[in-house]
Amino acid sequence: MSIHPFDQAMALRPGPASSPDLYTGSTSEAYWNMIGPFGGATAATVLQAVMRHPARIGDPVALTVNYAAALEAGEFSVRAIPVRTNRSTQHWQITLSQKDAAGLDSVVITATALTAVRRQTWSQNDTPMPEVPPPEDTPASTLFAGVSWVSRYEIRILRGAVPEVFDGRSSDSLTQLWLRERPERPLDFLALTAMADAFYPRVWLRRAHRVPAGTVTITIYFHAGSAELLANGCDFLLGQAQAQAFRNGFFDQSAQLWSRTGVLLATTQQLVYFKE
Amino acid sequence: MSIHPFDQAMALRPGPASSPDLYTGSTSEAYWNMIGPFGGATAATVLQAVMRHPARIGDPVALTVNYAAALEAGEFSVRAIPVRTNRSTQHWQITLSQKDAAGLDSVVITATALTAVRRQTWSQNDTPMPEVPPPEDTPASTLFAGVSWVSRYEIRILRGAVPEVFDGRSSDSLTQLWLRERPERPLDFLALTAMADAFYPRVWLRRAHRVPAGTVTITIYFHAGSAELLANGCDFLLGQAQAQAFRNGFFDQSAQLWSRTGVLLATTQQLVYFKE
Repeated sequence: MSIHPFDQAMALRPGPASSPDLYTGSTSEAYWNMIGPFGGATAATVLQAVMRHPARIGDPVALTVNYAAALEAGEFSVRAIPVRTNRSTQHWQITLSQKDAAGLDSVVITATALTAVRRQTWSQNDTPMPEVPPPEDTPASTLFAGVSWVSRYEIRILRGAVPEVFDGRSSDSLTQLWLRERPERPLDFLALTAMADAFYPRVWLRRAHRVPAGTVTITIYFHAGSAELLANGCDFLLGQAQAQAFRNGFFDQSAQLWSRTGVLLATTQQLVYFKE
Repeated sequence: MSIHPFDQAMALRPGPASSPDLYTGSTSEAYWNMIGPFGGATAATVLQAVMRHPARIGDPVALTVNYAAALEAGEFSVRAIPVRTNRSTQHWQITLSQKDAAGLDSVVITATALTAVRRQTWSQNDTPMPEVPPPEDTPASTLFAGVSWVSRYEIRILRGAVPEVFDGRSSDSLTQLWLRERPERPLDFLALTAMADAFYPRVWLRRAHRVPAGTVTITIYFHAGSAELLANGCDFLLGQAQAQAFRNGFFDQSAQLWSRTGVLLATTQQLVYFKE
């Protein structure tokens, strides 16, 4: 049985017994973006160090990942420290580093996470899934031909596709799309993390103008627990992303991910650097 | 000349020369909430350690603060480390600690921040300020009588006030309000940070039922630079907050803060723990 490319990308090796918080891994060509790894896969790798940690309690509830420097192709180390463990919640500080030219550890990613043992309470979906045609009635789309990570997903765009002509003629930043992993793979917290970053920079859509842009920080709130993920199986998720403001070099991007049955699985926001 | 209570609350003392990243401070009675300090003031204190740091470059662009444990009345220490400094951006890891019963440092808050030297670019407000009556035509409101931090703000609620009767009869989680500091004080990044948390728990509004609730993590994106803050002066901000999902012990809360002239100064999201 072959290993799914996402699971290959998420592979981490535990560090020496003297460093129980330390893991090492490698960037994945299968999730390569234009000039570095797909940020969603990097965020999922950060969370993987938490998921693998023997002292973890509960499921992921919140994750913030800051892209402090360019992640180069090759080896990296991730340190996930449970800095505070309460009765049912646990707070994590995570750092991903690479060796610099002088062989010294250099911080590439900083992150924090919250895991929690969740109990059943009153629950309410206050952001209903938009009424859209099912994935079966939505033609397959190509986001960016030849970009490696994009071909790891089956994407069907309902609204807000990449402009075919970058001519500055556009008026909003809303994208709605169906997506699932290719090949199919049951949804888990790592996949959901990566998918939260599967929307291309809103500035390209809003301006119909392709300027240099890159995520500097992303925060994901997991509204789903293991039961909702299990119920989703390998089915498509509906994703929606939109910006609120573009100002002097940075814009925000808010997104939601629903199961096909309308369960809001995750909400996320990110801040993106752009030039010009 | 008397010092504004907010500036008193934000006072930090630098640590010894051997620990340039370390500051100490005290919780403020003027910003006390029901059973601990107002989380917005605590988030602003975390940012203050960055603002005071002699190695800082640029203005705050993003801040995430995780409330890992209850902050007790009294002394605390804040350590703000510039873990990565690029040409125009800088990434910070911040930890706020208090002595535990055994006299050992115990982590109460973890945080990350991004500061940046911003350059003028194409800019666009994609979330117009809602059309609402001006603050002069909006009656003053009392959020929670007798709660200390609430009286540090002049709040005029347009929509989504605290339910007068907690009878379970409610249908949405949207609050819109005008707010400014009392006494008046020119807007800065610290004040904007605190105001991003000035909305009471959405679950109380959504359910018209007051259950135990507390913020576990908040992320703020600063769309404003120093120029926009200066232009605002002491004027009211328009704030809007709404939840997207309530699920098994946690809900999210998204908010926007505009200047009266319609400039989107900050967007924020937080995840809130609730019981039942």
